[in-house]
Amino acid sequence: MAAVSLSVSTVKPLGDRVFVKVSASEEKTAGGLYLPDTAKEKPQVGEIVAIGPGKRNDDGSRQELEVKVGDKVLYSKYAGTDVKLGTDEYVLLSEKDILAVVS
Amino acid sequence: MAAVSLSVSTVKPLGDRVFVKVSASEEKTAGGLYLPDTAKEKPQVGEIVAIGPGKRNDDGSRQELEVKVGDKVLYSKYAGTDVKLGTDEYVLLSEKDILAVVS
Amino acid sequence: MAAVSLSVSTVKPLGDRVFVKVSASEEKTAGGLYLPDTAKEKPQVGEIVAIGPGKRNDDGSRQELEVKVGDKVLYSKYAGTDVKLGTDEYVLLSEKDILAVVS
Amino acid sequence: MAAVSLSVSTVKPLGDRVFVKVSASEEKTAGGLYLPDTAKEKPQVGEIVAIGPGKRNDDGSRQELEVKVGDKVLYSKYAGTDVKLGTDEYVLLSEKDILAVVS
Amino acid sequence: MAAVSLSVSTVKPLGDRVFVKVSASEEKTAGGLYLPDTAKEKPQVGEIVAIGPGKRNDDGSRQELEVKVGDKVLYSKYAGTDVKLGTDEYVLLSEKDILAVVS
Amino acid sequence: MAAVSLSVSTVKPLGDRVFVKVSASEEKTAGGLYLPDTAKEKPQVGEIVAIGPGKRNDDGSRQELEVKVGDKVLYSKYAGTDVKLGTDEYVLLSEKDILAVVS
Amino acid sequence: MAAVSLSVSTVKPLGDRVFVKVSASEEKTAGGLYLPDTAKEKPQVGEIVAIGPGKRNDDGSRQELEVKVGDKVLYSKYAGTDVKLGTDEYVLLSEKDILAVVS
Repeated sequence: MAAVSLSVSTVKPLGDRVFVKVSASEEKTAGGLYLPDTAKEKPQVGEIVAIGPGKRNDDGSRQELEVKVGDKVLYSKYAGTDVKLGTDEYVLLSEKDILAVVS
Repeated sequence: MAAVSLSVSTVKPLGDRVFVKVSASEEKTAGGLYLPDTAKEKPQVGEIVAIGPGKRNDDGSRQELEVKVGDKVLYSKYAGTDVKLGTDEYVLLSEKDILAVVS
Repeated sequence: MAAVSLSVSTVKPLGDRVFVKVSASEEKTAGGLYLPDTAKEKPQVGEIVAIGPGKRNDDGSRQELEVKVGDKVLYSKYAGTDVKLGTDEYVLLSEKDILAVVS
Repeated sequence: MAAVSLSVSTVKPLGDRVFVKVSASEEKTAGGLYLPDTAKEKPQVGEIVAIGPGKRNDDGSRQELEVKVGDKVLYSKYAGTDVKLGTDEYVLLSEKDILAVVS
Repeated sequence: MAAVSLSVSTVKPLGDRVFVKVSASEEKTAGGLYLPDTAKEKPQVGEIVAIGPGKRNDDGSRQELEVKVGDKVLYSKYAGTDVKLGTDEYVLLSEKDILAVVS
Repeated sequence: MAAVSLSVSTVKPLGDRVFVKVSASEEKTAGGLYLPDTAKEKPQVGEIVAIGPGKRNDDGSRQELEVKVGDKVLYSKYAGTDVKLGTDEYVLLSEKDILAVVS
Repeated sequence: MAAVSLSVSTVKPLGDRVFVKVSASEEKTAGGLYLPDTAKEKPQVGEIVAIGPGKRNDDGSRQELEVKVGDKVLYSKYAGTDVKLGTDEYVLLSEKDILAVVS
């Protein structure tokens, strides 16, 4: 087995998962978003770079995702799995963890 | 990826979520609402500023929301995800976390 | 957004929720009801002042509530969300948290 | 709202709930029932004095209860909600918390 | 309400419950069964003395039990509700807590 | 009730349960299997000696098991209920706790 | 029962499980993948060496897996059951624990 050279284009999410590039904190303060420091779950902004084919229904068909590549999204900071490629941060999320599209 | 400039009109909730502007505390005391200090969940008042398209049914159709933009609603203080735009507080809620319409 | 002036008639419960005026403790001792001091959930008496339209079925129809405005009900003291209007106490409950009608 | 004067005949359980008069401890030792002092849930004996109409099915019909007024039943001591009327103890139980009929 | 005189024949389990006479420990060592002292759930041997009519299906029919009166069964020591009649120990179990028939 | 003399052939699992003879540790090191000492669940090897008839479907039919008597299987060390017959160790497992067939 | 000699080709996953060879850490740093040290679940890279036949539907048919032997996959480090064959590390995973295909 050869070495796995991970890059953004090689990551293909399964099912209803999406691959999201996390927006840097600077952008967020620039955009006026403020994340209050409370015990509640915190929102995070990112941009979708890859989406899965959707959940499979019992009859074998797919339930397509509501979001698409390029959408900027709000999601909970504590959801999903973090992945770092070089110096960029990404997160693999289920679509249900996306709260809103903000683009 | 350009900076994300968040404003109320750019937030589009997914599924059965609603975007709610939290009412200031002054209004509530003016209106006579008193939030008792107990261990039980506390109600909060807010106004809906954006709604999602509703949950998707298995056949692809949508189950429309019961609430609409402009509705003033009571919801549990501990539900949802807080978002701050400038000095205003907002919350992203699932419709099922809304207890009653009060307008 | 103008101040929200909450009064009983402006609270419209959603789904299968009911809005209940909590009966004062005096009434209960007068009526002979005694709430034993145990670790088990405690019953509380109240009168329904508003009801929701009922849960929506998958086909869009509603499952009407079994209780109606004016019913006096027993419910668990720890269920629902407390709301105070002036000096009166109210609670927003799901119908399933109502144990019995006592009127 | 007038004072609520609770008596056995005024309690009408909802759904699949039953209203049970708790049997006094004397009876149980007389009858030979011994409740072992363990960490497991303890059985309790009582007599049903009122039953609900049964759970509503999705089509609006009712699933009638298996027990009836007058049945003596074994139930878990930790189930349900205690209610005291005068010096008598009662409990509001879901039918599924009844372990066996013993009459 | 007259005193309840509990005896084996008066206990009629509801739904999918069975009434099991717990086998004495002597028998088990005689039979070679050894209950290892671990943190895992421990098996117990007993004989079924009464069974319920089975779970009711949505259409009102019953799903008959797989076990019958007289079956010797292995079940988890921590399952069900203990009942003592005179010096004999019994347990009220759901059929799903029975691991195997050993007769 | 006569003494229960348990032996392998008398254990008949119910539903989707299987009765598995636990393989001795020697065999496993011989076979090269190494169980890493981590906080994750540990696999264990055993051989199926009896199987249940399968889960009953709602229409009364059975869903046959995928495994059969004689299969060597990998299962989680923490699953099921341990039983010792003489000096041999057995375990009663649900089929869903079996990870793979290794024979 | 003869000794079980485990090798990769003898492991046949059941249901929707897959058998994955864990990629060595060197490969991952070479490929640029960095696993941030946070409290969130950590991704791990591996290659699928065997797959199960898929979950059985209620009608007895199978829901085939989306992944195939040879796929390189990202999965949560804390999912599944670790197995070591010689000096190689493997993991038995449910397909739903696979986050993305990266080959």
